[in-house]
Amino acid sequence: MCNKNAICNMDKLFESVAAKGHVCVGLDTAAEYLPAKERRQVASDAEAVLAYNIALVDSTFDAAACYKVQIAYYEEMGIAGLKTYAETLKYIRRKNGLVIADIKRGDIADTALRYAKAHFEGDFEADFVTLSPYMGMDSIEPWISHNANKGAFVLMRTSNKGMRDFEYLELKGGSPPLAPNAEAFSATPPARRLYHAVGDKLSALAAARQGAYGYGVFGAVVGCTEREEAAEIRAAYPDLFFLIPGYGAQGGAADDAALLLREGNGGVVNASRSILKAWNTEVKNSGGDESEVTVTFAAEAARRAALEMRDAIRNAAANVGK
Amino acid sequence: MCNKNAICNMDKLFESVAAKGHVCVGLDTAAEYLPAKERRQVASDAEAVLAYNIALVDSTFDAAACYKVQIAYYEEMGIAGLKTYAETLKYIRRKNGLVIADIKRGDIADTALRYAKAHFEGDFEADFVTLSPYMGMDSIEPWISHNANKGAFVLMRTSNKGMRDFEYLELKGGSPPLAPNAEAFSATPPARRLYHAVGDKLSALAAARQGAYGYGVFGAVVGCTEREEAAEIRAAYPDLFFLIPGYGAQGGAADDAALLLREGNGGVVNASRSILKAWNTEVKNSGGDESEVTVTFAAEAARRAALEMRDAIRNAAANVGK
Repeated sequence: MCNKNAICNMDKLFESVAAKGHVCVGLDTAAEYLPAKERRQVASDAEAVLAYNIALVDSTFDAAACYKVQIAYYEEMGIAGLKTYAETLKYIRRKNGLVIADIKRGDIADTALRYAKAHFEGDFEADFVTLSPYMGMDSIEPWISHNANKGAFVLMRTSNKGMRDFEYLELKGGSPPLAPNAEAFSATPPARRLYHAVGDKLSALAAARQGAYGYGVFGAVVGCTEREEAAEIRAAYPDLFFLIPGYGAQGGAADDAALLLREGNGGVVNASRSILKAWNTEVKNSGGDESEVTVTFAAEAARRAALEMRDAIRNAAANVGK
Repeated sequence: MCNKNAICNMDKLFESVAAKGHVCVGLDTAAEYLPAKERRQVASDAEAVLAYNIALVDSTFDAAACYKVQIAYYEEMGIAGLKTYAETLKYIRRKNGLVIADIKRGDIADTALRYAKAHFEGDFEADFVTLSPYMGMDSIEPWISHNANKGAFVLMRTSNKGMRDFEYLELKGGSPPLAPNAEAFSATPPARRLYHAVGDKLSALAAARQGAYGYGVFGAVVGCTEREEAAEIRAAYPDLFFLIPGYGAQGGAADDAALLLREGNGGVVNASRSILKAWNTEVKNSGGDESEVTVTFAAEAARRAALEMRDAIRNAAANVGK
């Protein structure tokens, strides 16, 4: 259960999805994604990125369930970049938005506790983090022990080709997880793979630490690029809220993502470049002049892209099982 | 092969081990590890930690093959902490020391490239990084493509209890890797586990990208806490240089670590708290007054601890196979 006198962030995210749809706007903001005009006018890339992030958070706020900030893009700019990272998180949280720090940390014991302090409070405070499970559950549990009102998404089955290298390896012994409605699947039961072992551990954790809407306070990262397994994964782990990458640029479509949702909730679908660079797509399609694009236009284009994505996923979710 | 006109960092590390022994001093420097007197005298924890790191690098420089800086301890202190992190790395590199950024990053494609730029150049430039393999080789390869003279240690079989959750899972099909001198092992061949799959991929990478001393430019993290498997792992992966955690506080001893070395080289053994807090151990053992401990004393105690560890591992390495 959540701690006393507080609502788990995973419950807040559930409510945000119900109100605003499934879009998670990914602020993987490289300076080169900004309109050239804006970039020239601001002293440093780090400042330009901060101004751009703020404009996009404002314009997409009622169309986005949450934001995901990929720290790599900020670390690349060094100390100045990490100040922009910190200010971006603060801006979203001051507006009562929800923000996922996409940091994919994974380390043990005392180190995990230091990381939890680094990302659940202080300069870099976020509402959720992403975690990597390779080292085992003693790299996950310290985060939840430190603050069970915060949330996390643990890498389970990601959307990249390389996921077949390890995540997808078939394990010896044991059965694949039994979905509550496994009889609905006509195919033979799938092989038990590494990502099932991760999912099973997360499911056990979810049973012990559950929010008000039936989801564990820690969820999982599941990509929407492998359509044939999506329904199986969703059915096997009804108690895990999913952070769903792979939409758009990586090939996932709204009806792929919808298979990973549950009763119209239970997941957020991330899109980064298609929203950050929507201005570029619009100008190219209309044959306009790229050099004249303003931040205001870019923010409006981002909003249009987010709304379009929101509606596409809502429609697809309404059609699942029909 | 390394790029032209440059020596791979893994070759430099090999030479450093030959000259200085196997100790990797872990600067997982929490402010509370410092003598209280020092901590009181300096304005902020971040400044105190930087001064302490510099004193310890100076005192241990001829006794340490390299340094490993665990970024979690610095992130915990926010932006100020990351400035100390950056300054610590710069200080070691200015002295021509070798430094491993213990960041355990693991992300794909464009994100991996951003990370590589963040940690192989700029404010946070290190000589080596640690990486997590969960997402697959497309989270590892971009680092090497970006700069093949830098190095990395990829998590393979770590020293924590939780490694049994996933790293240790037995895979279906395939055989365990065949060690060149497998006939030397009387036991039945071990099961093929997830960490073997990681080791095999790293070994393939090492074959394509090898330094002058027969080690791949990317090595592996292998803990010295599972004595019974150490000789098997060393024999199976002669081309991988190992970063060896688990010494001291986590239960590994010099003769356990020595089993993971190869012909007196091929690995560095990390110790953090036993060196950072050697002053504390010495004062407790002698019944002295903790409140009077100076940085100078703490740095000398760190040096004594590093030298003792260096000699213990050298002696153990000389006895392997005898």
